[in-house]
Amino acid sequence: MDADEIFKEFKEQSVSEFFRKNSQMLGYSGKVRSLTTAVHEYVTNSLDACEEAGVLPEIMVKVTQLDETKYTVTVRDNGPGIPEKLVGSALAKVLSGTKFHRYIQQRGQQGIGAAGCTLFSRMTTGKPIHVRSGTERQSYTCDVTIEIKTNRPIVENLEKLSDGFRGLEITAELGEVKYEKSDHGVYEYIKRTALSNPHVSITLVEPDGKEAFFPRSSGEIPKRPKQIKPHPLGVQVNDIVDFAHFSSERTVASFLSETFSRVTKSKVDELGQLVPGIDLKKSPKDLSWAEAEEIVKAFGKIKWMAPELDSLSTIGRAQIEATIKNILNPTFVAVVERRPSVFRGGIPFVVEAGIAYGGDAGKASEEGMRSSVIRFANKVPLLFDGSACAITEAVNTIQWRRYGISDFEEQPLSVMVNVSSVYIPYSGVGKQAISHEDEIIGEIRLALMACAKDIERYVRGERAKSLQESRYNMIMRYVGQLASDISEISGKDRGDIEASLRKLIDTKYSRLFEGNAEQGGEASDSEEDTAEEGQAE
Amino acid sequence: MDADEIFKEFKEQSVSEFFRKNSQMLGYSGKVRSLTTAVHEYVTNSLDACEEAGVLPEIMVKVTQLDETKYTVTVRDNGPGIPEKLVGSALAKVLSGTKFHRYIQQRGQQGIGAAGCTLFSRMTTGKPIHVRSGTERQSYTCDVTIEIKTNRPIVENLEKLSDGFRGLEITAELGEVKYEKSDHGVYEYIKRTALSNPHVSITLVEPDGKEAFFPRSSGEIPKRPKQIKPHPLGVQVNDIVDFAHFSSERTVASFLSETFSRVTKSKVDELGQLVPGIDLKKSPKDLSWAEAEEIVKAFGKIKWMAPELDSLSTIGRAQIEATIKNILNPTFVAVVERRPSVFRGGIPFVVEAGIAYGGDAGKASEEGMRSSVIRFANKVPLLFDGSACAITEAVNTIQWRRYGISDFEEQPLSVMVNVSSVYIPYSGVGKQAISHEDEIIGEIRLALMACAKDIERYVRGERAKSLQESRYNMIMRYVGQLASDISEISGKDRGDIEASLRKLIDTKYSRLFEGNAEQGGEASDSEEDTAEEGQAE
Repeated sequence: MDADEIFKEFKEQSVSEFFRKNSQMLGYSGKVRSLTTAVHEYVTNSLDACEEAGVLPEIMVKVTQLDETKYTVTVRDNGPGIPEKLVGSALAKVLSGTKFHRYIQQRGQQGIGAAGCTLFSRMTTGKPIHVRSGTERQSYTCDVTIEIKTNRPIVENLEKLSDGFRGLEITAELGEVKYEKSDHGVYEYIKRTALSNPHVSITLVEPDGKEAFFPRSSGEIPKRPKQIKPHPLGVQVNDIVDFAHFSSERTVASFLSETFSRVTKSKVDELGQLVPGIDLKKSPKDLSWAEAEEIVKAFGKIKWMAPELDSLSTIGRAQIEATIKNILNPTFVAVVERRPSVFRGGIPFVVEAGIAYGGDAGKASEEGMRSSVIRFANKVPLLFDGSACAITEAVNTIQWRRYGISDFEEQPLSVMVNVSSVYIPYSGVGKQAISHEDEIIGEIRLALMACAKDIERYVRGERAKSLQESRYNMIMRYVGQLASDISEISGKDRGDIEASLRKLIDTKYSRLFEGNAEQGGEASDSEEDTAEEGQAE
Repeated sequence: MDADEIFKEFKEQSVSEFFRKNSQMLGYSGKVRSLTTAVHEYVTNSLDACEEAGVLPEIMVKVTQLDETKYTVTVRDNGPGIPEKLVGSALAKVLSGTKFHRYIQQRGQQGIGAAGCTLFSRMTTGKPIHVRSGTERQSYTCDVTIEIKTNRPIVENLEKLSDGFRGLEITAELGEVKYEKSDHGVYEYIKRTALSNPHVSITLVEPDGKEAFFPRSSGEIPKRPKQIKPHPLGVQVNDIVDFAHFSSERTVASFLSETFSRVTKSKVDELGQLVPGIDLKKSPKDLSWAEAEEIVKAFGKIKWMAPELDSLSTIGRAQIEATIKNILNPTFVAVVERRPSVFRGGIPFVVEAGIAYGGDAGKASEEGMRSSVIRFANKVPLLFDGSACAITEAVNTIQWRRYGISDFEEQPLSVMVNVSSVYIPYSGVGKQAISHEDEIIGEIRLALMACAKDIERYVRGERAKSLQESRYNMIMRYVGQLASDISEISGKDRGDIEASLRKLIDTKYSRLFEGNAEQGGEASDSEEDTAEEGQAE
């Protein structure tokens, strides 16, 4: 066969067709994970939409079993809904959306999540998804599916309603899935979503009809993250070339100031000195790759102001504490929010961590309670690929014994870490693990060590308290005998003696108990944490 | 903000733009892996093209270092080349190609490999790739790149030549890569490609200028795998619906017979009885999802002839033995090719395995030689994600000690396994690991156990031989003393006695050595292997 014959069959395939064959790339691999992925996509979209619309989210997730591997998933929110004319593209066209072209911290980013669910539903059950949407102006229901060969949405059975419904409700029938109450299942996903989103009220109706309600612990809508300009130190050659090509600025100089943060007039002058061969007055469209490469190298030599850090949206220290108390009901909690920091020179990020002890913290196993590491990236729970994650790495490198926690694995502990950034450096394809950036691991370690100190005080206090308690109980057991003996020697009344003794002992030990209680009280950001940072850095 | 405002920014992105942001999905993650991925894509395309054109492949791979993380990769083959009018789409348009719509065993399948390289080159260096192609009719050079925002190829500097060049040569400049002589690097990839493709002659020019030449060990072009129809037991509802929708057959009955293998007239009748509610005379376009679901269920109840197995292209037992001898130069080799088998009821596959002992088998480490597991899927080396792979799992569950190999990890052993199938069930996103299908693991185990038996015979033979040798040497050391003693007792000549003794001993041991040599000779497919299969199944 020659080339013409071989290439006779040359064809194109749609991106939907590609993802139909490679649905594992979108998180659809394994029955349990596929179900969690679908719920994750819808819940993520609901949270982003509510945040954008400035609404306190109320979300209902319902999973119903149809047969062995077939379920329906319904997710309803009270968000802004979807305009009727865009419902098809928003839910059934892979690679379209409102999110992927912004430099802003957000949960979903790909313009692929909801369409991926529609595709998976179509692939495994042949069914369209059912949509009900109410915006301020209109309300409607319809069925939406995707024509895989062409990546085109098909909207059918559109019906306008005037029921005043506001929000979005999607029902998808999914095959090849399984509901399981494991670490990787929907229940855990929803619980963790509630943990990292204190302003969300979320109800899960499980296949057996049980309702799990996670009420909000905060009535405050998180401030919207700002869309920011990238910092010169976080930028790659290919970004500059791309931005330049589409820029409407007239000169390279003004393009750089307008596109990147911290590029002031005087910094442009400094740059000019470093790259004398590049004409900064020419059009950015004429910037060559080699020139952009030179600019990136020069950026590295200039001393820049740190990136703007108010682009980051965190959960917040008080909120984490409230939500942990709300959901895990621990006997003690320590929370630390670190100051924003920067990795790879120019990408801002911030770490928050909390450790909960006792109550419903940790996880039950056949051998008793075990500690549990709860990972989040931009408040989204990461349920898979834990062993490849910077958070796991940081947790494993803490010498817990130094903090009075001898068998870390076997404690009723929940360690919760949230990393927030405009650009989370995921290590894997599934976006379920954060890569091992030194700066990020360092910040997580510092946050955990500060929490561990508080836990240490509490645990040591508890231990001392229980020691004192057992001494107290022992002495109290002897008190009757002692009173008899003293009564016989002294001839005084046995009852009086016993009462006095009891009072004496109570006074002594109650003082001790109070002292311990004070020690083990609240989480603190004391100067010792700062000292620890100094050592570790 | 209301829905209209939020959706004002609704946009579409191109599939290239998506993969630019998610290049790890295509194997571009980590500097070493990214370079191996690029070489893999080009070499795979060369092998497939030569196979299709019926040419004995001669491939040259050259890697040159430009600066710390920037390299050029050149891959040249003697295949059919690319017709001029398709060069852009073939090399710089993601999701187009000749391969992805066939049900046939082939190395590449996605229509994404070469375009992915062009994208990665564009992303990391801004450069186009340089192409030289000679088909039977024409010869030309050109530069090709991809406009990422639109997924459109750009072909520049096209120049027609009449130099008689036949084949394809691509040179790509890549950034963010690294050449490393590790298990994951280009050298190992090429060496393993040579191992699994005995008919290929391949030269690697390393960045330091050294040339590694892997000559072909077979002049036979492997027979092209046949394009086959899917077996009814390997088919999913969604496939039936898709096929039916695009079928030009007039009835469901003829559609089923034409589309799937083993669906004879009498099987259609049997099906009719099982699904009385479905009109098999209606147009396949009217087949509903629910009906297709019923048909799949009924397929499961019918007794089918096994799938056609001649669709599978293996390396071949003699070829594996030749190529292992050629490249690893071992002191002993055992090879087994299993009969084709089926997983998930309808998907044919076949396992080949070889174990090489001594010589260049195994891998050197600081602590001495270590065993090495060399994995292939459809003859393509799998270098990453080994721990998730069915081949690794099978190797780890063999009780090597039972075969006289006490410390499997610490032996100069190379274990080579190739799984061939039209549909390899990859477990991960990166297509670097085969998922844990019971039938596949079972077949790999049987192949390995048969090889292990041969190795056992050889190793025990070697051990006995070296034992005998040390006894011989010991006796020979005493022979002088013994001759003197006997001479003194008998009064006979000491020299004569010693000569007789030496002759006696030599005769005895030489017989033993020969016996061992016979035992440890060639690999065999004896009846014992069959017995072992019986036990294990």
